[in-house]
Amino acid sequence: MSSWNEYSTENKDRFLEELLGLLRIPSVSADSKYKEDVARCAEAVKEHLLKAGCDTAEVCPTAGHPIVYGEKIVDAKLPTVLVYGHYDVQPADPLELWHSGPFEPVIKDGKIYARGACDDKGQMFMHIKALETMVKTGNVPCNVKVMIEGEEEVGSVNLGKFLQDNKERLKADIVLVSDTSMISMEHPSIESGLRGLSYMEVEVTGPNRDLHSGVYGGAVANPATILCKLIASMHDENNHITVPGFYNKVQELSAAERKAINDAPFDLDEYKKDLQVGDVWGEKDYTTLERTGIRPTLEVNGIWGGYTGEGAKTVLPSKAYAKISMRLVPHQVSDEISGLFAKHFESIAPASVKVKVTAHHGGEPVVTPTDSPAYQAAAKAIKTTFGKDPIPTRGGGSIPIIALFERTLGLKTVLLGFGLDNDNIHSPNEKYDVANYFKGIETIPYFHKYFAESFGGNGMGI
Amino acid sequence: MSSWNEYSTENKDRFLEELLGLLRIPSVSADSKYKEDVARCAEAVKEHLLKAGCDTAEVCPTAGHPIVYGEKIVDAKLPTVLVYGHYDVQPADPLELWHSGPFEPVIKDGKIYARGACDDKGQMFMHIKALETMVKTGNVPCNVKVMIEGEEEVGSVNLGKFLQDNKERLKADIVLVSDTSMISMEHPSIESGLRGLSYMEVEVTGPNRDLHSGVYGGAVANPATILCKLIASMHDENNHITVPGFYNKVQELSAAERKAINDAPFDLDEYKKDLQVGDVWGEKDYTTLERTGIRPTLEVNGIWGGYTGEGAKTVLPSKAYAKISMRLVPHQVSDEISGLFAKHFESIAPASVKVKVTAHHGGEPVVTPTDSPAYQAAAKAIKTTFGKDPIPTRGGGSIPIIALFERTLGLKTVLLGFGLDNDNIHSPNEKYDVANYFKGIETIPYFHKYFAESFGGNGMGI
Repeated sequence: MSSWNEYSTENKDRFLEELLGLLRIPSVSADSKYKEDVARCAEAVKEHLLKAGCDTAEVCPTAGHPIVYGEKIVDAKLPTVLVYGHYDVQPADPLELWHSGPFEPVIKDGKIYARGACDDKGQMFMHIKALETMVKTGNVPCNVKVMIEGEEEVGSVNLGKFLQDNKERLKADIVLVSDTSMISMEHPSIESGLRGLSYMEVEVTGPNRDLHSGVYGGAVANPATILCKLIASMHDENNHITVPGFYNKVQELSAAERKAINDAPFDLDEYKKDLQVGDVWGEKDYTTLERTGIRPTLEVNGIWGGYTGEGAKTVLPSKAYAKISMRLVPHQVSDEISGLFAKHFESIAPASVKVKVTAHHGGEPVVTPTDSPAYQAAAKAIKTTFGKDPIPTRGGGSIPIIALFERTLGLKTVLLGFGLDNDNIHSPNEKYDVANYFKGIETIPYFHKYFAESFGGNGMGI
Repeated sequence: MSSWNEYSTENKDRFLEELLGLLRIPSVSADSKYKEDVARCAEAVKEHLLKAGCDTAEVCPTAGHPIVYGEKIVDAKLPTVLVYGHYDVQPADPLELWHSGPFEPVIKDGKIYARGACDDKGQMFMHIKALETMVKTGNVPCNVKVMIEGEEEVGSVNLGKFLQDNKERLKADIVLVSDTSMISMEHPSIESGLRGLSYMEVEVTGPNRDLHSGVYGGAVANPATILCKLIASMHDENNHITVPGFYNKVQELSAAERKAINDAPFDLDEYKKDLQVGDVWGEKDYTTLERTGIRPTLEVNGIWGGYTGEGAKTVLPSKAYAKISMRLVPHQVSDEISGLFAKHFESIAPASVKVKVTAHHGGEPVVTPTDSPAYQAAAKAIKTTFGKDPIPTRGGGSIPIIALFERTLGLKTVLLGFGLDNDNIHSPNEKYDVANYFKGIETIPYFHKYFAESFGGNGMGI
């Protein structure tokens, strides 16, 4: 199979340059003012799919941002891999903390700095370049279908309908996604599970207008103060979440399972040093790896209210807001948790304020059995290119649509991620290591090969 | 003295038009981008002082925004009144809540709508028009000095030095200020006391960068969550403030004093209806009038951190901030309280975050004895123009520089305010009733007359 490596080595510079071009498009799906850039990015992805050798590729409109779909059918009898990725990115703010423009990619110390470098343009594009490599070397072990959406960062709100409407066309044997991270290049790993998500927004209204904090202060409920009290009450002294029923469906893992998770290489001092925190924080009686992997959480993603400008304004605000999201573990159901949260939040608000709770997107947790042929093919591909077996881990993040694939298409998913936890995804100075980018392009074809072979003999469906 | 009334009646339209002109200048002192408008406003005030008949008037530069000073000396033997006011205004945001432009004054239902209409351009300008009235009718009962500053809304940071440098020039017998409110036109009142202020800003830092709330959530202290916990802990279940030592110097008022305060006309249902709140909120065992008048408070004026834009961003923020101010009552000292707050806030922050506490401006509480000649002159002036005795009240707001006048110039202050609590000062749709504006212009000359007379005989210093 060395021809694969030869081809990608020969085209290294172009593969990198093409990614930088994609990173220059500010495809921020959450902010409507980037709508045209998102559309422009979709067109670019389509062009790259055709260039890579897809038989067909098109930009499929949705009620929101478009989905790009392309496919390379080698032989109907061969197994089919459906590759999923997303070309949209998180907002870049706070801009002042970036060392270089979020949409002016630069390569420094072997790292590509740009919004989306890792999440998910860099990882998604590895698949397009791997496909090109397989096609141009005349060695495509299975059929490949590629679906790249533009709304992953806003909850994939229109993907469900697309899957429903295209069941036939999307028929496959497995979904392959690179939108997760591994422990390190020295310790390659594969995420065997992901957390679900419930994302809420709350609005607390006190008086019907902003008031002078001297004239009214002390006599009227301050919505910012009340919001703080409500949020503070969401964790008890052991950092357990206090929403009634929140843990009802959470299953305790066995001692063996917890040991496996804690056996993963992890250096707490390194972790604290990297984040420059005096101490970690979290649920009592669980380790950091458990807190991020197998335990549900509740986090404030944003809070605002009153005067936040320069100087001092003595105002008692009329409203205060917060964005609060919960990560869910297997068996918790996003809609149920959102409902429990809303009910609880409304129930604990005092009579002196009004509260409004709305749910943003959610998603269900997923687990990929490590003994499945697809996981095994991924593990073997890693072994081939890294020279060692991958460690199975539980990812703390969420890719809500994976549960959707299972529900709508009846397909399992393999998470073959090449990111690193310090890639600053969703943060200023997001980066992706050049080495990981090319390691991904090198590894992906082997997944296709081993997955096809798992169907018997030479990979032909016989 | 009817000639005063005749003159102001004849010039009613112009008096109003001139005020609107002043309100069109966005003299926001807190926001540096309005620096030139603030300077322009100072020039306008100087011109009005000369036009009103001041012997001299000038714009005095300071390290910040300028102070305008003018004087009309009738006879060195007569007593002198030092009028204080401010031409700067609060920021206008949130702009979207204004029914008309904050700096495009409109008159509707007998009310002038604009930022600064009441606080303090409208009230300050009454004194300039009252002075013009006295001068043009040849009837000025005492010497009048007028000092109008441009930094009241940002803590009068440069006024102290100005007072020090101009002690001689500012020699007077009393300070007269119209920057407060009365209960209503039917129930005229005079504020016999004001609360002090300590205004703090806090910054809570968790990890050194924004993080993905899935990858790190549950394992790293979220500064927004911690900030909420810290703020929530600032009031106990009885809404007493928990900062150690905060109440040490607060003196309980006698039953008689509390009765006098609670005898003031006040309709709790009206109050709740006006603010559209289900219930009031505040310190246990005190009435609303006591909570805003004689008790110290702690209010969140602003809070922000994380993602506050459109849609959903799953970020665990690096920093969260809040502006928190405390209103102080007699004997509490602003610097001491600021120190106690900072010490307490730092002491309760967990090791997993860093906190930074900075103090904005502060001010000391003041009380004006109701038996003083100056207060009596004000009461008599109100009686003359309103036909009834004013009710002495305790104002909840703060005019920090009043304590400064006493300390630096050795002068007491009379608070002859014509605003109403529903004037929305510091809020969208600030207004000032046209009737109150002219009632002020009508009343002020009588204060000068009665105050001068209190010095004996015909008001001549003999």
